[in-house]
Amino acid sequence: MTSLVECVPNFSEGRDQQVIAQLAEAVRGVPRVRLLHVTSDYDHHRSVLTFVGESEAVLEAAFRAIQAAAQLIDLKRHHGQHPRMGAADVVPFVPLGSTSLDACVELARRLGARVGAELGLPVYLYEAAAQRPERRLLAEVRRGGYERLRETIHLPERAPDYGPAVVGPAGAVIIGARLPLIAYNVFLKTDDVSIARRIARDIRESGGGLRAVRALGLLVSGQAQVSMNLTDYQVTPLHEVMQAVSTLASQHGVEIDRSELIGLLPQQAALDALAAYLKLPALRPEQLLYDNYLLEG
Amino acid sequence: MTSLVECVPNFSEGRDQQVIAQLAEAVRGVPRVRLLHVTSDYDHHRSVLTFVGESEAVLEAAFRAIQAAAQLIDLKRHHGQHPRMGAADVVPFVPLGSTSLDACVELARRLGARVGAELGLPVYLYEAAAQRPERRLLAEVRRGGYERLRETIHLPERAPDYGPAVVGPAGAVIIGARLPLIAYNVFLKTDDVSIARRIARDIRESGGGLRAVRALGLLVSGQAQVSMNLTDYQVTPLHEVMQAVSTLASQHGVEIDRSELIGLLPQQAALDALAAYLKLPALRPEQLLYDNYLLEG
Repeated sequence: MTSLVECVPNFSEGRDQQVIAQLAEAVRGVPRVRLLHVTSDYDHHRSVLTFVGESEAVLEAAFRAIQAAAQLIDLKRHHGQHPRMGAADVVPFVPLGSTSLDACVELARRLGARVGAELGLPVYLYEAAAQRPERRLLAEVRRGGYERLRETIHLPERAPDYGPAVVGPAGAVIIGARLPLIAYNVFLKTDDVSIARRIARDIRESGGGLRAVRALGLLVSGQAQVSMNLTDYQVTPLHEVMQAVSTLASQHGVEIDRSELIGLLPQQAALDALAAYLKLPALRPEQLLYDNYLLEG
Repeated sequence: MTSLVECVPNFSEGRDQQVIAQLAEAVRGVPRVRLLHVTSDYDHHRSVLTFVGESEAVLEAAFRAIQAAAQLIDLKRHHGQHPRMGAADVVPFVPLGSTSLDACVELARRLGARVGAELGLPVYLYEAAAQRPERRLLAEVRRGGYERLRETIHLPERAPDYGPAVVGPAGAVIIGARLPLIAYNVFLKTDDVSIARRIARDIRESGGGLRAVRALGLLVSGQAQVSMNLTDYQVTPLHEVMQAVSTLASQHGVEIDRSELIGLLPQQAALDALAAYLKLPALRPEQLLYDNYLLEG
């Protein structure tokens, strides 16, 4: 039994294609790691790599990518719309297959120790890997970004989990473990962002809505959008989220135009949602006929 | 670019586990063929193997399985509920990935010629591989089964496409090519089979309903069931079938209890249906995060 892990590091570079290519190369250089996806955003000035492999190989690839980012990216000259605290800003490990979240927590802490010791960068642990309850939420850890961290890292409450309390041009690295996250946005047939905001407020867990759902109302290209993160699709599956947005939208007298997925959708989350719609008791990956098979021999 | 093909042969043996194991072994013996599924039904006295691979390897595996069936199964002593005409009764090739249906037609004809010449069995071509229009429908080719074929094979309209007009204990082989088929059954919350029959009549193509849909109303374990074959999910996708059954059922005042899939569901058919439910413009296999990856190197 292998222990398959996904890693989805976010880097503070979304414009220089050479730098982005070097980050990707750092990952590709590790045998038996598969780089699935690279996405960059100019306005956010940020790139996200998605790669998978067995835990030891993924740990090595994550380390090499952080090392490359620390050499190539200077936070003092970085200005983007997205909050960030480091060159390699956030590095989450995600369990796949039969791998446990605990195994990813251990991986995050081992990577953190190595980054602190070998690269001399301050490291903060977040989400399931957090060692302080106030560091579970990424937004809390990153509040104020790189600029504020330089002023406050000497304070006891800002002491890094690993590495020195020193902020250089590469800033700090926030490392953690979490379940697969589904980033799912629903566009409404209206330009009235207040409706999207009200739906988001009603639907999100922090507003007493659906568990394991975060939501924001946004105006995207002139259209109201309910932008959501599903942090545990086994607790609140995709079709329940869609159903809830649908019901709330019709209460506001607006229709759903379309939806979009950002990044990857865990296959079982897709199959669970489809099974619910089709009233199948269950739907497993082995029940699908694929366009590609691994043919041995 | 490989040309990936699925083969789903049906054999007239559903009881003797040793014979079924030998059929499976015949397929497994061919390198780079992957046997995905073996299913046997005692009452139907019938087994279905599902295997995939590149076209040449799948052709060889199909030939070996037909050869084994001809040696092991005696139609003169076979009595089951399911219509059948041969030991290896029906052998369809199905295109996967970028393979065309035409490529599968060619494969079916090459297999037919080889089975006729080397095994001395009469072969009929059906569906997309048919060389006579009246042989397109499997039910037409197989009408009267093995017993009737013995009496009529000398007639001109029964002349085999390949092989001798002689019916031995292994009977004839019906070989063809078709698109992936979805076998999908919907159970109603009633024991009134007449409602299932009326829904089936309204929904099937031959009754003026949905294109590429065949349907029967059945009573299964005391419950009314609409039993369907979707023969081209790109023409009529799964969610439209479910929607139509739902609408018709509610017109009859009954609810849908649950549904079931028999055999495999093409991944793109699953993703198309889910995309429709979630109002995603499209959903492609590359957008999924899997529990398993091929890790090279």
